[in-house]
Amino acid sequence: MGGSRLPSPAEPSKGRLAIVGIGPGRREHMTARALKVIAGSDYVIGNDSYLDPLKPLLTGKTVIRSSMGKEVERAKKAIELARIHTVAIVSGGDAGVYGMAGIVLEVLEHSGAEIPVEVIPGVTAANAAASVIGSPLSGDFAVISLSDLLTPLEEIERRLDAVFSVGIPVVLYNPKSRGRPHNFTIAITHAGKYLSPDTPLAIVKNALRDEGEEVIITTLGEVEKYTDAVDMHTTVIIGGSESRIWRMGEHVKGIITPRGYHHKYVY
Amino acid sequence: MGGSRLPSPAEPSKGRLAIVGIGPGRREHMTARALKVIAGSDYVIGNDSYLDPLKPLLTGKTVIRSSMGKEVERAKKAIELARIHTVAIVSGGDAGVYGMAGIVLEVLEHSGAEIPVEVIPGVTAANAAASVIGSPLSGDFAVISLSDLLTPLEEIERRLDAVFSVGIPVVLYNPKSRGRPHNFTIAITHAGKYLSPDTPLAIVKNALRDEGEEVIITTLGEVEKYTDAVDMHTTVIIGGSESRIWRMGEHVKGIITPRGYHHKYVY
Repeated sequence: MGGSRLPSPAEPSKGRLAIVGIGPGRREHMTARALKVIAGSDYVIGNDSYLDPLKPLLTGKTVIRSSMGKEVERAKKAIELARIHTVAIVSGGDAGVYGMAGIVLEVLEHSGAEIPVEVIPGVTAANAAASVIGSPLSGDFAVISLSDLLTPLEEIERRLDAVFSVGIPVVLYNPKSRGRPHNFTIAITHAGKYLSPDTPLAIVKNALRDEGEEVIITTLGEVEKYTDAVDMHTTVIIGGSESRIWRMGEHVKGIITPRGYHHKYVY
Repeated sequence: MGGSRLPSPAEPSKGRLAIVGIGPGRREHMTARALKVIAGSDYVIGNDSYLDPLKPLLTGKTVIRSSMGKEVERAKKAIELARIHTVAIVSGGDAGVYGMAGIVLEVLEHSGAEIPVEVIPGVTAANAAASVIGSPLSGDFAVISLSDLLTPLEEIERRLDAVFSVGIPVVLYNPKSRGRPHNFTIAITHAGKYLSPDTPLAIVKNALRDEGEEVIITTLGEVEKYTDAVDMHTTVIIGGSESRIWRMGEHVKGIITPRGYHHKYVY
């Protein structure tokens, strides 16, 4: 790993830990704060898919590449290093939403260490995907992950029922993966209990990433045709009871959820 | 207003419209894309509280300051200008969440104009407030506005009931204003039907803004003491059934919602 450096007892610890949300993928969608804190860190920790777009920032730093599914190990390593070093642990999107912030702070608390810690927010996948298709989340909305690795499927279904029943737009994270191919279909079935088949639905893959951005705008009633396009790099936005397709000329551009100005204004 | 310039018939229109989320307040929490697009615009439109932190970027541009509550007018003006100019309409947080994206795209569609349009996402208030208090939104969550200007109060109450009933963390936008002083108390009453009085609750004012950041960490059972601290510059995060207070040494630092790693790992 190299670069390790023990402080003399008289030297005040300069260790600190930053948990950095790096946004959807392209560097231009990172915040200046995220860039600055990564640039000022001795160690940068993250998994490959997050570190690759950061390559130009990483010269001269010790980079620790970790694998998906090793979050607890990664958190422990970050905290151990942050006792004496400046450490940035990077997380896709916003670090606080299905990212590293929760597990790092849990492990930090359990360790008893008192280290300066900063969570740096970023553009989360819900907002990145929404921006690509117009304004589907203009008002109230809910964010639900379909991954049952850490939450039992029955609990996920209960949450889906609740949020679909009140007709607010719902963003699905982790909609499908090898381990859970059927959860997406289950979610669609719950949506169909409360929402019209005309409800617009977007499948957004690799939103605002350098490569592979794909958008499908369809409806709840037609989505069955496109389930093969849903994978772990996809965010799915299911419109609410007031959402509708957004058109420009003859082109379908995305989804708008009106906020209700039309009740008060003529335009 | 000045700076107006009509293209000759042979010149292709250079007009374009960007709806730019500028994040919670401090410039360092804006994305590079947002900064770049504002810098490249002839016209920048927004209300004072969003334009003031951008002052250094606005030299040489025509700035149109608008008032809160004039969103439809502002959208019409932006579209009119964007037929021949480069226009940025700025919105606090993420433009797609209680921001300008929805109404601008609605008015644009209704106008029939075909203008290149880009929605640029930013760090929304939910993620900004969450980052200041640890990791309260680590998993599923819902975002509900308590403003009944555009949504009837009964509808808001129905949504609150649904999301609190499944124990996910809830972010309240627009929790209180002069026009609706009681909506916050109503929301707390709904939360109390489903969640324990020990449920952690955070009142975050001016999160990541240059001035006036204040944080109160309390519980659902104790929040009554702090309702005076809640105003329109505040975001309130009510933890879910699994959320707990986050401590470092003897200090209360914020709120953690564990994602469930503790079911699978020892740390």
